Amino acid sequence: MNAPGPAFPALQPDEVFDWLDAEAARRSEAGLVRRLRARGPSTDELDLAGNDYLGLARDKRVAGAAAAASLRWGAGSTGSRLVTGSTELHAELEHELARFCGTQAALVFSSGFTANLGAVTALSGAESAIVTDKYIHASLIEGCRLSRADIAAVGHADPAAIAHALATRRKQRALVVTDSVFSVDGDVAPLRELSEACRTHGAALLVDDAHGFGVLGDGGRGAVHDAGLAGEPDVVTTITLSKALGAQGGAVLGPRRVIRHLVDTARSFVFDTALAPGSAAAALAALGVLREEPGLAERVLTVAGSLAHGLREAGLQVSGSGGAVVSVRAPGPGEAQAWAGACAEHGIRVGCFRPPSVPDGVSRLRLTARADLAESDVDRAVKVVAELAPPGARG
Amino acid sequence: MNAPGPAFPALQPDEVFDWLDAEAARRSEAGLVRRLRARGPSTDELDLAGNDYLGLARDKRVAGAAAAASLRWGAGSTGSRLVTGSTELHAELEHELARFCGTQAALVFSSGFTANLGAVTALSGAESAIVTDKYIHASLIEGCRLSRADIAAVGHADPAAIAHALATRRKQRALVVTDSVFSVDGDVAPLRELSEACRTHGAALLVDDAHGFGVLGDGGRGAVHDAGLAGEPDVVTTITLSKALGAQGGAVLGPRRVIRHLVDTARSFVFDTALAPGSAAAALAALGVLREEPGLAERVLTVAGSLAHGLREAGLQVSGSGGAVVSVRAPGPGEAQAWAGACAEHGIRVGCFRPPSVPDGVSRLRLTARADLAESDVDRAVKVVAELAPPGARG
Repeated sequence: MNAPGPAFPALQPDEVFDWLDAEAARRSEAGLVRRLRARGPSTDELDLAGNDYLGLARDKRVAGAAAAASLRWGAGSTGSRLVTGSTELHAELEHELARFCGTQAALVFSSGFTANLGAVTALSGAESAIVTDKYIHASLIEGCRLSRADIAAVGHADPAAIAHALATRRKQRALVVTDSVFSVDGDVAPLRELSEACRTHGAALLVDDAHGFGVLGDGGRGAVHDAGLAGEPDVVTTITLSKALGAQGGAVLGPRRVIRHLVDTARSFVFDTALAPGSAAAALAALGVLREEPGLAERVLTVAGSLAHGLREAGLQVSGSGGAVVSVRAPGPGEAQAWAGACAEHGIRVGCFRPPSVPDGVSRLRLTARADLAESDVDRAVKVVAELAPPGARG
Repeated sequence: MNAPGPAFPALQPDEVFDWLDAEAARRSEAGLVRRLRARGPSTDELDLAGNDYLGLARDKRVAGAAAAASLRWGAGSTGSRLVTGSTELHAELEHELARFCGTQAALVFSSGFTANLGAVTALSGAESAIVTDKYIHASLIEGCRLSRADIAAVGHADPAAIAHALATRRKQRALVVTDSVFSVDGDVAPLRELSEACRTHGAALLVDDAHGFGVLGDGGRGAVHDAGLAGEPDVVTTITLSKALGAQGGAVLGPRRVIRHLVDTARSFVFDTALAPGSAAAALAALGVLREEPGLAERVLTVAGSLAHGLREAGLQVSGSGGAVVSVRAPGPGEAQAWAGACAEHGIRVGCFRPPSVPDGVSRLRLTARADLAESDVDRAVKVVAELAPPGARG
């Protein structure tokens, strides 16, 4: 076979990626360049940036379980869940997650990202409509893009808009997709109203409870449990094992037939290496801690409430506080970055969220509560964040 | 806002997922139902199914590094790479991976799956053409689907077809995507010829070296290194940390500007929790072992060659053996499953690949070589697999 000649002027090998430099220059001008900061194992900084809501990542019971499992089972799972990657640890974790959250079954993925990809794609398809809140997490959006379904992204936290989109859909089968606690602003979705809209219109409801699980609901059973929807036959929940449980991984919880369907068809499950034994064991140990100390979840909410209250009193534009996330508006991406940097210099690590990590384009500081923060920590954080606020941060 | 009434006949909540039962029945009839088998921590079985090619997952140096890091750094990374998830372990692992493979830089993801999603999407886009081998891994296919690029999937291992598709593309910018060692059949892609086609037509080359890294090339530096393409300005490689390195995770290796671009734009990097410290430490330790014992990689190829030779001598239809994967054709999915089950009863665990895990629809047994297998292990495996072969397996 003789291939035709080049369709475009030839590039030298070292010119092929020149377009990346042009894009980098554009991001730099817009204040959107990111740098990886490699942290050490311990720090004097007060961490209000991570998602280790219960402070369990370094808990000796949890880290110890990870260490013991690595030694007993090996550092890796050696294969996909369907070949050699499923261990008794994965099975026990799935059993315990379902029992804790009140669902028939659960399935562990290597991340919350891949759990969301798998759940959205396997529960929709070309014969489906998907209706979403427009502020859902990026991993859910990627799932929607992969699904081949008709997609309608409607207003934020707006059950009437969801109902309208369901009523005017062109496919019989429908899936409504939402976060429970929105990761950027920390506000909580109206899950009961969304479920009502689903039931009126014969749709299934998929809730990403990544930021609700371990924090909201009875003993940290999550936002879906709190809304009385756990165990319902038309509701599916995704969670992460990397936030409240302090480990790594994700899971889908729901009716047994949904979980069986995912095992057979979710491409991000079938074609991915299974979660490492150490991470599965850590999540299992953390779940045990949460069961023994149900007050942990409540403590996170108390801390978050104090944080939000203090920052609001200081005149800042605060949202969230329904869960562990407290979000503070910044005038722009450059100001947000400088503000977060100044806080770090004063020993307070906060998150800095800029486009494209913010669905509404608004740059923010994002503070997360932890169950193990003292009141004095909260006071210090509020003082530093407020004192370093840039002009325009108070609206 | 008054939502209009239902567009479709209402379903009861417990009817919403009835369609899953219909699909399950269809899979059952086609012999395509999968069951998760939870294995114990140790076994008398001979494992020829996992991807732990160098036998490092349970190596004390590797598992011990995972355990020590979990205790020192915590069970989880606590956040995304851009917030709190980047530790010195991640940075050191990236430095060492790049140094070992001979690229300017590397970026660690939580899985090979998300590394592939990130690399494909960030290096293409609506203004790009992507040309792929039609048998690329599912995670690369998902990346292509997410990319918004013009996609052309051409014949398997066919540089002329790739060149033709490049020559007739409608977008100036182009990316060629291929596996190095194809995961199902184990055959090796003609990387040098593919690179030539890319250079003739001004395209970049992205190679998934998940099954080549640690096995092929000088001391296990991978298929891209073996083809003399590591460090080239127009070549990007993805690898996993979960196969030859016995840990969990994935990485992208390439020019520094490519890695910087991924940090800013790869959604499966930006929006995912970072790899757990234990897994990063395990991969780092395994890389050290590979560096100290370069003969490990060669040993895998010797074992794979013996396996393939023995099975071929027994009259079976064997492909692969360019890397660690040896694939044996089965007459159909039901026969493949029964064959693999019978082997397991005789103490030999082999992989059973059926649709949709096989790109060409052909069901197979998939055997993987390990550096720590003895010749007697290989002989035993060949004997059992050959004796239990179903009618039709010999073609």
